[in-house]
Amino acid sequence: MKVEKYKKCGKISYTLGVTITIELLKQRREAVNAVFVSSSIDREKDGFKQILEICIRENVPLEENDKAFNILSPKGNCFAIGEFEKYTCRMDEKASHIVLVNPSDAGNLGTILRTSAGFGFTNIAVIRPAADVFDPKAVRSSMGALFHINFQYFDTFEQYRESFGEHNLYPFMLTSSVPLKDTELKEPYALVFGNEATGLPDSFSELGRPVVIPHSDRIDSLNLPIAVSIAEYEASKNNWSK
Amino acid sequence: MKVEKYKKCGKISYTLGVTITIELLKQRREAVNAVFVSSSIDREKDGFKQILEICIRENVPLEENDKAFNILSPKGNCFAIGEFEKYTCRMDEKASHIVLVNPSDAGNLGTILRTSAGFGFTNIAVIRPAADVFDPKAVRSSMGALFHINFQYFDTFEQYRESFGEHNLYPFMLTSSVPLKDTELKEPYALVFGNEATGLPDSFSELGRPVVIPHSDRIDSLNLPIAVSIAEYEASKNNWSK
Repeated sequence: MKVEKYKKCGKISYTLGVTITIELLKQRREAVNAVFVSSSIDREKDGFKQILEICIRENVPLEENDKAFNILSPKGNCFAIGEFEKYTCRMDEKASHIVLVNPSDAGNLGTILRTSAGFGFTNIAVIRPAADVFDPKAVRSSMGALFHINFQYFDTFEQYRESFGEHNLYPFMLTSSVPLKDTELKEPYALVFGNEATGLPDSFSELGRPVVIPHSDRIDSLNLPIAVSIAEYEASKNNWSK
Repeated sequence: MKVEKYKKCGKISYTLGVTITIELLKQRREAVNAVFVSSSIDREKDGFKQILEICIRENVPLEENDKAFNILSPKGNCFAIGEFEKYTCRMDEKASHIVLVNPSDAGNLGTILRTSAGFGFTNIAVIRPAADVFDPKAVRSSMGALFHINFQYFDTFEQYRESFGEHNLYPFMLTSSVPLKDTELKEPYALVFGNEATGLPDSFSELGRPVVIPHSDRIDSLNLPIAVSIAEYEASKNNWSK
């Protein structure tokens, strides 16, 4: 099979890594075209055995293909690759949402997906221009959590709002009078976050009830995945036990 | 001035970027050898003006040196570099601590420093083997917060314990009976976190009172900087207002 470098405008993406490829096979079997393994994969390890077992059971083409690794992961620390067709999702209108306005970094986006899946926020809106959720870097830093998430891209925030008009909006601002710990979230809600460098435009404080995560003035701001994670933790901490 | 690639075992490190270089000059003037600016830096911008003003006032050599950028930041998105001598710190024994056991990624370490400075945890112990806090990647992802932090490296956890025997230990484990939200932290305390891939060894649950940040089973674990940040947020959220 011919393998090509990832293209944002293309129809295909890749999972680079054993664990993520297993998540892909488990959650999105219908999107998978093929799985490639490196000639240096350890065939005695659980990871390979799981891939083999699923590929046989689910009738997924599995092939040793070192060329794919040279093209897609030249650093050589990757032993399995899943090739899959990009797919679209529909967000659940009854669930609460995370809304990311112009996130610019694919690695950050993946980290946000991972934490969001962890805290039960599986419906995520992304407002363009934005990083590409199917970028192999995002898929990788999500550790496969991407495949648990319903995400939808929108050209503008207004477009999101037209689709989901019932959600109570909580924009996270760098300054606001109400700290997260004192914010009562009314379901269904949308937690809204701005871009890494600029945050949300001031105009967002007129939409819904602005929230701040207070911190010392030793730093200018929290990093975006950190801010999203803290908000999700605070919002969901009574839902989990272990 | 001659500039060399960063070496972990060397005596010198670098801040790559205007904002971080300003933080270095403000917080650790005594460690600075020189500041380099790129010939393409915008001399009308505030960042350059601040660097110029501090260098003149504090008598720091300032030099246009494109070669330094070719060597240290070949990607070309960096316009100022601070060269500084590595220094050592002493942690405050009265303050609460963050203890990182074998963190392996310099970027993660920097992100942790940034959030820690934000939430007032300015005393951080790092147990070897560990990523290098002076790695320019760590300095950069800390956004300069490194220069606000007292960090100390220890060869073993026991060595940390010998220096700071009074701290109440709260090891963060993947499984534990007590969730973070129900944990009452007694000062002075140390929040202890394991390596990115493996977490803390089970034996840590015998030391102090183990804590867990519960999440859904859609993910195996939270990413390390996320876990540290959530713990710091929960521990300090009543200290900040804005």
